Amino acid sequence: MFIVADNLRITLPMIQRAVDQQHPAPVRELVRSCVHAGAQAIDINSGPLSKRAEEKMTFLVRTVQSVCDLPLMLDTTNPTAMAAGLAACNGRAILNGVSLNEERLAKMLPLARQYDAEVIAYLLNTDGHVPNDAAGRMEAAVALFDALQKAGIPPNRIMIDPIVAPLAWQDGNRQNMHVLDVIRTLPELLGVNVRTIAGLSNLTSGAPDAEKRHRYQAAFLPMLAASGLDLLLMNVLDPGIMGLAAACGTLVEESIFSWV
Amino acid sequence: MFIVADNLRITLPMIQRAVDQQHPAPVRELVRSCVHAGAQAIDINSGPLSKRAEEKMTFLVRTVQSVCDLPLMLDTTNPTAMAAGLAACNGRAILNGVSLNEERLAKMLPLARQYDAEVIAYLLNTDGHVPNDAAGRMEAAVALFDALQKAGIPPNRIMIDPIVAPLAWQDGNRQNMHVLDVIRTLPELLGVNVRTIAGLSNLTSGAPDAEKRHRYQAAFLPMLAASGLDLLLMNVLDPGIMGLAAACGTLVEESIFSWV
Repeated sequence: MFIVADNLRITLPMIQRAVDQQHPAPVRELVRSCVHAGAQAIDINSGPLSKRAEEKMTFLVRTVQSVCDLPLMLDTTNPTAMAAGLAACNGRAILNGVSLNEERLAKMLPLARQYDAEVIAYLLNTDGHVPNDAAGRMEAAVALFDALQKAGIPPNRIMIDPIVAPLAWQDGNRQNMHVLDVIRTLPELLGVNVRTIAGLSNLTSGAPDAEKRHRYQAAFLPMLAASGLDLLLMNVLDPGIMGLAAACGTLVEESIFSWV
Repeated sequence: MFIVADNLRITLPMIQRAVDQQHPAPVRELVRSCVHAGAQAIDINSGPLSKRAEEKMTFLVRTVQSVCDLPLMLDTTNPTAMAAGLAACNGRAILNGVSLNEERLAKMLPLARQYDAEVIAYLLNTDGHVPNDAAGRMEAAVALFDALQKAGIPPNRIMIDPIVAPLAWQDGNRQNMHVLDVIRTLPELLGVNVRTIAGLSNLTSGAPDAEKRHRYQAAFLPMLAASGLDLLLMNVLDPGIMGLAAACGTLVEESIFSWV
């Protein structure tokens, strides 16, 4: 399982300030910590960036790349910010992401083609809601995969995110069992070994305390790994969860085992 | 997931001495700790009991039942000890266990019928070895399920143990992925919703230290839970693993979620 840091988020006041003031030090420090912790890619969660979107995303990409050469995911719904980020990126970035929203697809997919970017595809309904069972997610996967193929994005450039449900949702635990089914059966359904990605932090949004957040992430991470998940987006600065991810990696891989 | 304590083992010197001297206090204390920790059943791992087998198993069963009324698993390969344990048990015990060994089946199954005991069936080859893939385990499951049915043990009295492989084995990690497949697909294969059981401690026999033992058990337990395992035999005196088991329970159950 390939580990992607979800730590760089504009919702952190420290990062918001750094971006507003074009002050690279806090961003660099955070990214260095993620690299040190073992991140294998960095998600730049800039949010929609309603003002000075190009300038801010360009700043973020350049600042991150000034301290690491890991793959970057550009995590914004704003096509202007996305275009600026893809242009600023030294090497190929990952476009995070698209769903069955026609308007978004029409704006984002030409960018993906132009920059030969990998694309993360979210299994949402056309109305933007999360499907409430495995069948709904499968339906979205087939439709979205088809739309991406038609737009000229080859299967090996696509990663599918079945959307981990917050446990605080009324049927979150049931939904997450469907998420596991989707991860396991998607390659067979699509007839091609498309990669899957999931965000672990989403599971525990609304958790009452850090201990419960840790416990439920620790319980669900191995389930994702055993289902065959390819990429996990997570808080890489939680050493317990990172150690667990490493242990899961050695359990599910076909290579010779050694204690890590 | 129903949690069975594997803590009561004759291989513990303290327990060996208590059994040899018919001294109930150490056994009672251990069992009370297991109950307090949340065990839902107690496995009495008496070993083969080569000498005074009846007396020792009777002592163990009576001593355990003097401090708790949880279901008991009688974990011995010795039919004489098994018969004594089943006779001594107040209520029905679980016979742990049988495999495709003809001689053992011939001695154990009449006892299971006589006492209407549940039976744990180990997926071993007829030579007593662990099959080295999912297909081998499935084959053993079909043959053993058939043998049990023919001997008059109904499906709802059978629990199947696909045998967790120690990671220290050359292909332990690969085998354990097959164990997950077997747990997931067994009900469909057998055409009946037979229960499954697995022993977690086996995974880490030979682990270099307690931290690694904990880490790998923590990684594998949620994988077992997500595969649909019904009963987990484990060290209930590890509070971290018990908390994890509870969290996994709330994740995989269809009931309304609440943070535990």
